[in-house]
Amino acid sequence: MENYAAGLSGLSFIAGQWQSEQQQVFHAFCPARNEDMATPFYNASLQDVESACASAERAFIAYRGTSYQQRSEFLHAIADEIEALGDELLNTTHLETNLSLARLQGERGRTMNQLRAFADALADNLAPLHLHYHDAGEPNRTPLPKPDTTLRFLPLGPVAVFGASNFPYAFSTLGGDTAAALAAGCPVIVKSHPAHPGTSELMTRAIAKAISRCQMPEGTFAMLQGTDHSIAHQLVSAKQIKAVGFTGSLTVAKALMSTIHSREEVIPFYGELGAINPQVILPQALASARNLGQQLCASLLMGHGQFCTSPGLWLVPTHDSDELIAAVREHIGDAPSDTLLSPSIIDAYERDTKAVAQCNGVQVLAQGHKSAPFHAQAQVFTCSAEGFINTPMLHQEVFGPAALIVHYDDEQQLLRVIDALEGQLTASIFGEQAQYQPLIERLSYKVGRLIYGQMPTGVEVCQSMNHGGPYPAATDVRSTSVGLEAMRRFLRPLCVQR
Amino acid sequence: MENYAAGLSGLSFIAGQWQSEQQQVFHAFCPARNEDMATPFYNASLQDVESACASAERAFIAYRGTSYQQRSEFLHAIADEIEALGDELLNTTHLETNLSLARLQGERGRTMNQLRAFADALADNLAPLHLHYHDAGEPNRTPLPKPDTTLRFLPLGPVAVFGASNFPYAFSTLGGDTAAALAAGCPVIVKSHPAHPGTSELMTRAIAKAISRCQMPEGTFAMLQGTDHSIAHQLVSAKQIKAVGFTGSLTVAKALMSTIHSREEVIPFYGELGAINPQVILPQALASARNLGQQLCASLLMGHGQFCTSPGLWLVPTHDSDELIAAVREHIGDAPSDTLLSPSIIDAYERDTKAVAQCNGVQVLAQGHKSAPFHAQAQVFTCSAEGFINTPMLHQEVFGPAALIVHYDDEQQLLRVIDALEGQLTASIFGEQAQYQPLIERLSYKVGRLIYGQMPTGVEVCQSMNHGGPYPAATDVRSTSVGLEAMRRFLRPLCVQR
Repeated sequence: MENYAAGLSGLSFIAGQWQSEQQQVFHAFCPARNEDMATPFYNASLQDVESACASAERAFIAYRGTSYQQRSEFLHAIADEIEALGDELLNTTHLETNLSLARLQGERGRTMNQLRAFADALADNLAPLHLHYHDAGEPNRTPLPKPDTTLRFLPLGPVAVFGASNFPYAFSTLGGDTAAALAAGCPVIVKSHPAHPGTSELMTRAIAKAISRCQMPEGTFAMLQGTDHSIAHQLVSAKQIKAVGFTGSLTVAKALMSTIHSREEVIPFYGELGAINPQVILPQALASARNLGQQLCASLLMGHGQFCTSPGLWLVPTHDSDELIAAVREHIGDAPSDTLLSPSIIDAYERDTKAVAQCNGVQVLAQGHKSAPFHAQAQVFTCSAEGFINTPMLHQEVFGPAALIVHYDDEQQLLRVIDALEGQLTASIFGEQAQYQPLIERLSYKVGRLIYGQMPTGVEVCQSMNHGGPYPAATDVRSTSVGLEAMRRFLRPLCVQR
Repeated sequence: MENYAAGLSGLSFIAGQWQSEQQQVFHAFCPARNEDMATPFYNASLQDVESACASAERAFIAYRGTSYQQRSEFLHAIADEIEALGDELLNTTHLETNLSLARLQGERGRTMNQLRAFADALADNLAPLHLHYHDAGEPNRTPLPKPDTTLRFLPLGPVAVFGASNFPYAFSTLGGDTAAALAAGCPVIVKSHPAHPGTSELMTRAIAKAISRCQMPEGTFAMLQGTDHSIAHQLVSAKQIKAVGFTGSLTVAKALMSTIHSREEVIPFYGELGAINPQVILPQALASARNLGQQLCASLLMGHGQFCTSPGLWLVPTHDSDELIAAVREHIGDAPSDTLLSPSIIDAYERDTKAVAQCNGVQVLAQGHKSAPFHAQAQVFTCSAEGFINTPMLHQEVFGPAALIVHYDDEQQLLRVIDALEGQLTASIFGEQAQYQPLIERLSYKVGRLIYGQMPTGVEVCQSMNHGGPYPAATDVRSTSVGLEAMRRFLRPLCVQR
């Protein structure tokens, strides 16, 4: 297939080598053409997992001893090597994901910015993260002398990272978790997502070049290809693995957590799972209803609804919302037809949107175009506040370009809707908030990021970002997967006393 | 019994009231006299647990809204009320624990210092903890404007705290976890330790007075008495509970973790479990062998070996260690007879020391006095490095005044002993370290606190302290139970974007 990277080996990258037992193969899928691609990729074997873990454990001893400066240069080298892949990377990913080249270019830039932000923080001795405390001793204190103590932070050890299909750069092979773990001093084993194996291999080639250029220990990074769940469970069971970063579905997260809980040593599991990201439209926001309706639709249709921060729930006043509703009808009605990341995601979207449409009191407000049977059609539904509160199915994320408008009569009803929500990655609030402070306080305890007057899609990479939230948006509410603070996931304190 | 607090009700404290279903009673035990005390304490019922959880959830909404200044005053008020209990508290705890009045006075002072350190940090707007980050927006940035983001930290919600028997103040009803959670804005439900129920009730009375004085919401603090494990499991299962602090044994921690893992929402479990706290005697340290031997014995005998930081493993050069060994024989031989905290702890000590003595190659080096059948006798054993490495039983903590001397021939053998260790709360190093840097680096990955030239017993309350460590010393290596950083256990980030 034209533009698909030539010379892909289809192998996994283990202990500094490209290798696999090569028992079974799978193929990347091209969503735009609804067909497999020709290049075979080899499923990693259980022996491959063992070998990667053993190599990561050996690498850890040397890698944790590298200086911040060395690690900073390493991360810069990775970013340089990835950029040197040029259009071949973008074209390959475009074929594998159907995400637009412009979007992929943006995502690549963001991912490189993130890597370089960690590199710069390391060069700055991690000062921005406040990972160093000292209390001076007082040898003459009575009744007991006070010791001199310093709090430092050590890397946890080898980290397993599971890439997501919807962000092939930002939350995949070299996404936030990999960058944060490498910055922290932890070797990384990526279980790459089979929806973009060629992308993962190209990324891994770039990292391998940087490892070699910077003389980092072999085993600092490994990448396992595969469609077999058993290697995922083997990986998180391995005694060498000291933390797991995951971006994906609640179902898979639960299965992995169950395996992790059966370990003797329980380890951190950072699952970033998704959300319906409520958009709270306060009455005054209806003054600019047409513009707001257009923005909500544009945010929903970004990446054809496949952002984990996609706005899936719009809380709209029952009264005076005709103009907003009209705008939504118009923009969704115009929404172009497109496919999603993979056939299984299409199937789930079809199933979930049908189930939503069949819920008592739910109506279809607007539908986009559908010009091929394997395309997903944008859809916006409506229901009442009481209908929403009483229907658990409507509280679940529908992955893809679907949203639900819930009409509320007054502040009390809006508060009850908010109280009924599960944990969310984000919530946005539009309109004058002065009289709604108690409601907004309640909402803040449901989310990882509270946004005033802006759409939820797009996660800024900066120190004060939080990408995560209360369960089931994420499995560890204490931690972010984006921004410099993500490094803390893979560090732990050590007090040195003299 | 003289000096036991008069007027104890024996009830649990729930929703601002003293109450219980009063189905069954248990009695405090007086270790010094090896007999139960007269006052009955009532086992909390499952309904009591439900009521406490519901009340804590209601209290959370009001309590999290209190200002840092209000919470600071509340913590100061608790400390004042506890000090106002005066000798009645010390005498009651002395009867229940057999810990000396001087030790209890010291522990009370330390516990009040910790409370006031949190109060002062709150008054200082938590600035010392660096819990606030801001990135200014750039509305004109291209291609996309940069939002204005602030990272704040919210309390997790109601916290369950399990007190330990060996530190009736510092790690019990109002220990580090309770203080940190209340400072963070979380209501607390304490499952008090049945080894000191009178102490727990007095502590709770002081807290109740402070709640009333400071007009904090009822349900901000609850205390459940009881010997029935089912209430512990009910408590950590409750959907209102958002984190658990625990100090105790690995066995109980595993049982509680298993229950926590069966929840829909997995919550943080901070178990601080214990360790053998290796003491690494490098050859040069033998120059002051007599003094070192005396110090090691004194540290071991502190609280009759019932510190979680008690030095249980002494790594001593095979050669030139006669003087150290002689000093240990002398000081342990003189060790007075005493009981331990409870009959079950005595039983476990007898069982564990017998099992150690029966291990292949283990010899009894020294024994202290034993003047009553219910007393625990101080004991120091010896074995070879190879014997230690190959005998997993010797890697386990023996709770009480027992230690094991492991002789090593050279640096390589010492490194192998260190590599064979499980996770530890602390390790101490004595002697010239210059040539041992790689070994010390390896050791630092086994411990939560690395100590140069000092005994491990005694944990300074300060910002740069870490009390915790790799599993099985603790269940969450990322977190400390002592010092200001302990507040992070009960906080989570929220990004506010404008």
